[in-house]
Amino acid sequence: MENSRFEKQLTYILEIDKEKNILRQTHLSGHGRRENDAEHAWHMAIMIYLLKEYANEEIDVAKTMMMALIHDVVEIDAGDTYAYDTEGLTTQKEREEQAAERIFGLLPEDQKKELRRLFDEFEANETPEAKFAHAMDNFQPLLLNNFNDGEDWRTHGVSKTQVLKRHSMTGLGSKEIGEYSKSIIEDNVRKGNIKDE
Amino acid sequence: MENSRFEKQLTYILEIDKEKNILRQTHLSGHGRRENDAEHAWHMAIMIYLLKEYANEEIDVAKTMMMALIHDVVEIDAGDTYAYDTEGLTTQKEREEQAAERIFGLLPEDQKKELRRLFDEFEANETPEAKFAHAMDNFQPLLLNNFNDGEDWRTHGVSKTQVLKRHSMTGLGSKEIGEYSKSIIEDNVRKGNIKDE
Repeated sequence: MENSRFEKQLTYILEIDKEKNILRQTHLSGHGRRENDAEHAWHMAIMIYLLKEYANEEIDVAKTMMMALIHDVVEIDAGDTYAYDTEGLTTQKEREEQAAERIFGLLPEDQKKELRRLFDEFEANETPEAKFAHAMDNFQPLLLNNFNDGEDWRTHGVSKTQVLKRHSMTGLGSKEIGEYSKSIIEDNVRKGNIKDE
Repeated sequence: MENSRFEKQLTYILEIDKEKNILRQTHLSGHGRRENDAEHAWHMAIMIYLLKEYANEEIDVAKTMMMALIHDVVEIDAGDTYAYDTEGLTTQKEREEQAAERIFGLLPEDQKKELRRLFDEFEANETPEAKFAHAMDNFQPLLLNNFNDGEDWRTHGVSKTQVLKRHSMTGLGSKEIGEYSKSIIEDNVRKGNIKDE
């Protein structure tokens, strides 16, 4: 075992443990505590595997799962930016770029490049894999939030326009899940969980 | 979209959210809170991807990752059995068998069979994929625990014999990581974190 290579891999593996402490705005089902990045990514990866039949285009499942598993790693440095935090969103790209350089940079060069490529591909949202991963990134909290009677939407007082905009890209990955997401949103507008504006 | 099929998939996806509330004995790095099953599985899947070069035999990486992601799902019903809880271990198999039937049974028949096969393959620990997934299942908490100065071993007062036994299967998946695990254990015996008996 080449020690320095293995040590770099272990350094990265220990570093990403911190994702378990990065809290999102979504709450666990049953009106639970806030979800963290690692749990969210785990859930997304399983959803990718189970729902792949609804992807618009054929996807490389392993690649899409790995993309999901690592896509939030930059939040270790950059923090979670809430989807409806317009101020935070303006500086998000720059903060996340620096974080990606530092964190993937802990890995041996070949794996740094490999994960960085995967991360950039996710961000660019152009390939079938990135589009489906993004669809799951949006659909997973939608499911939890809907199951919790729209608790997170009510707390933040978000509007239908905002929610529809956020979920507008889901259809790029899966037309069917995009349509289903819209029906969930409409349903929550009717119930008064999302403001009709 | 065939509704009943999609609904079954979503029922399973919502059910496994509960894994985020199943606590293990391992603590997060930096002497953090106890880790849950979902986080542990997420960490394992990334480790499988990054450390695959150390597997004794060639592995199907996607399959091994999915195995890791779902391997603890039965603990939703059966609870987490601590590796050194000899009483709990005697009834573990039966409790987990019933849980697997119920939980995988929420899925459409084809996916139920597919995930059940993957789960059984992991449990049997005979294929290269199962052996490497088991290696990561053991190596992941070892890494965290070592990073936390052996806190979990000290709390439970476990002995070298117990710890070596638990980690004896790591070498089946990866000789190199098996050897490295032993060196970590010896080091923690020297430091007094593991009882030398």
